[in-house]
Amino acid sequence: MTDRQLHLNAFLMTTGHHEASWRLPESDPLASTDVKHYVNLARIAERATFDSLFLADSPALFNDVGRRPAGCIEPLTLLTALAMSTERIGLIATASTSYNSPYNLARRFASLDTISGGRAGWNVVTTATLDAARNFGLTDLPSHAERYARAAEFLDVAFKLWDSWEDDAVLADKDAGVWGDAAKIHPPLHHGRDFSVQGALNIPRSPQGYPLIVQAGSSEDGKGLAARYAEAVFTAQQTLAEAQAFYADLKSRTARLGRDPETIKILPGIVPVIGGTEEEALRKDEELAELIVPRYAQERLAAQLRVPVEALPLDSELPADLPTEDEIEGAKSRYTLIVDLARRERLTMRQLIARLGGGRGHRTFTGTPEQVADAIESWFVAGAADGFNVMPPSLPGSLEAFAEHVVPILRKRELFHHEYEGNTLRDHYGLPRPSNQYVAAREAITP
Amino acid sequence: MTDRQLHLNAFLMTTGHHEASWRLPESDPLASTDVKHYVNLARIAERATFDSLFLADSPALFNDVGRRPAGCIEPLTLLTALAMSTERIGLIATASTSYNSPYNLARRFASLDTISGGRAGWNVVTTATLDAARNFGLTDLPSHAERYARAAEFLDVAFKLWDSWEDDAVLADKDAGVWGDAAKIHPPLHHGRDFSVQGALNIPRSPQGYPLIVQAGSSEDGKGLAARYAEAVFTAQQTLAEAQAFYADLKSRTARLGRDPETIKILPGIVPVIGGTEEEALRKDEELAELIVPRYAQERLAAQLRVPVEALPLDSELPADLPTEDEIEGAKSRYTLIVDLARRERLTMRQLIARLGGGRGHRTFTGTPEQVADAIESWFVAGAADGFNVMPPSLPGSLEAFAEHVVPILRKRELFHHEYEGNTLRDHYGLPRPSNQYVAAREAITP
Repeated sequence: MTDRQLHLNAFLMTTGHHEASWRLPESDPLASTDVKHYVNLARIAERATFDSLFLADSPALFNDVGRRPAGCIEPLTLLTALAMSTERIGLIATASTSYNSPYNLARRFASLDTISGGRAGWNVVTTATLDAARNFGLTDLPSHAERYARAAEFLDVAFKLWDSWEDDAVLADKDAGVWGDAAKIHPPLHHGRDFSVQGALNIPRSPQGYPLIVQAGSSEDGKGLAARYAEAVFTAQQTLAEAQAFYADLKSRTARLGRDPETIKILPGIVPVIGGTEEEALRKDEELAELIVPRYAQERLAAQLRVPVEALPLDSELPADLPTEDEIEGAKSRYTLIVDLARRERLTMRQLIARLGGGRGHRTFTGTPEQVADAIESWFVAGAADGFNVMPPSLPGSLEAFAEHVVPILRKRELFHHEYEGNTLRDHYGLPRPSNQYVAAREAITP
Repeated sequence: MTDRQLHLNAFLMTTGHHEASWRLPESDPLASTDVKHYVNLARIAERATFDSLFLADSPALFNDVGRRPAGCIEPLTLLTALAMSTERIGLIATASTSYNSPYNLARRFASLDTISGGRAGWNVVTTATLDAARNFGLTDLPSHAERYARAAEFLDVAFKLWDSWEDDAVLADKDAGVWGDAAKIHPPLHHGRDFSVQGALNIPRSPQGYPLIVQAGSSEDGKGLAARYAEAVFTAQQTLAEAQAFYADLKSRTARLGRDPETIKILPGIVPVIGGTEEEALRKDEELAELIVPRYAQERLAAQLRVPVEALPLDSELPADLPTEDEIEGAKSRYTLIVDLARRERLTMRQLIARLGGGRGHRTFTGTPEQVADAIESWFVAGAADGFNVMPPSLPGSLEAFAEHVVPILRKRELFHHEYEGNTLRDHYGLPRPSNQYVAAREAITP
């Protein structure tokens, strides 16, 4: 247990995860399209030896552009730019299996992995909004089960594509005039339910073989996909007990599929509001809460909960009569989390909005650097987390505070590495480079 | 005429356009996946004030990986990396309208344009190979006409997406708590033959409004698409007379559609083999020709011409009985060019292979820097070109030779700029930033 190390990702979002962060005096409200802003964040995170940078994504504009910075640079493009401004930190982009084709996306991740020297990760999502579906020729959101079936087949095809070149397929034999060895290239010849993909990828196998596979859905289907494929899981957990239950459940699902449970890292989100003293931290929290415009959140919650906005007056608790998770086709686990949080703590709408405004359902924690480090350590040692997805409420400020004040404490406690030990994202996570399925199949039949 | 300036693009391909360039002693045969190789090329081209870097693409692995470097970094990803290593040079990526969705691709180009400060260009292609079709769930290559109809609709949707944010849609009003103005955001609500795209793009309008639109097909359908949409046309032309005819035809097609013919730049490819003396240049040409392995080209030509490989002995001319352009569904204009070249110059198969090996049908020119500058000037002043797509046969060597020895001559003759005058690719090409169609429509009805 003593040499077990925390994994920390810097989950970057425009001016920060708090919906009102862009209104802070120190925030640049145009940061979401400014690559220099992100280069600065990437360098802060890399100096603090974060395992990776992480970017969320949905291929649609969100509902209300008045509320917060709504347009930003596409994540794989942005991480490619950041690959050129950093040396060691991992680069995890979210991308949808519902609205991409395997050939294009596998190629883009292999390209980022190649450019970055093996630092790419893919947060595999199925994209739960009707808005996104309608940007890609669909009139309805495909069902939850259908999206997850497509995601599994998408991954199978992607693995075939990433393995389509053996590691030694490039001969580069100038004398013989033979650049590549066709016998070491394996077209997928895939013909499945959702995809037909005939030919090999047009890029050699990348430094990591595959990008690190991350999964972020916590529904039953999501946990099933994670147990089968994921090497890291991002999850929103509000209480220690829930986080422990999720952790134990996912590790045992993974083991039941014959995988070593050490090879799946479980990383809850944490939104740290940090102050030099407890009062200072609470003042920051309040400053942010006061900048929230409640109307935006009220309308969004009404849509999520499927009730008219008039049913959610600001100073009342949630109405008793709400749909169950089974009736929801969108982000199921997030729906349940919001309803449970409001009911457990008997929050008024105004209080719920302030809580969600900080990190949209993730665990917020307000305190001194020592207290934040304690909050992290307590979950880490209690079997609730292998590390955290750190979600700074404001940027660059709260990332700097975490890097300068919390990281040194975690290092002193021997919970977090002092420097990068390897070069690839898999190295940082202590995960092996995957073997090539075609080579493995050949070796299995050759004595 | 005196202030008319040449436009020069550096068309980069792995170790060079010559198929045997990777076998030269000085070539790095692994350059195609080495981002440092491309950063070096980009900086050479930028120091020589080339208008842009250009990368070709097809989403499929080419037939014979033995022949030449076959796997490389995806172009939009690579140009994003190069955007971070350069300041002014344009960045033109090829991408297919047949195997992408408008929302994803429009978003990626807007992202590159944003990151690069307005330097993105899109070479719009329909992708003529069955191999590519089979990587995206199709069993047959869609017909030429169908691919071009889809391309036109794709562009219409892309323009709607790029205009979906008015330039002043971001208010960033901290005091009022209003980030974006929903009234200045225009969802495309597009429902056409090939595409349905409902919502606005999730990135604000980029510095150039649209990336520069480039087109590279020279078939009838290709010329029609170019006259309607393109701001630059890349074309393979072997003789001055053909190039003049193409130039006049495309300029007048453009004018007939009500566009100023100055706003479409016609840029033939040129493969310059440069030596300090004419003999030195010829020796380089021979060195490269001797490194060609004829078997690869023979098999590829047999497939392109639709004859068995036995019908193409190395020391005979082309057989008399070949299909006409109308019978070809693939790259029509390239097919005709190859057949015409071989017949006009009565080339044996071995000679044809040497000619095509240099630049796959583009004009090769072997000589001293003065002679190369003459070759460029003669077409430029004779109404055959507004500039050239410079295709170095070997890299970095022939790009360096062009930058160091040909560019100074062109500058001395006042044919090429000494420094960048603007910041965007449109500035370099002397083209205006497109107005927003939704703003224009509103202004048309508001007195």
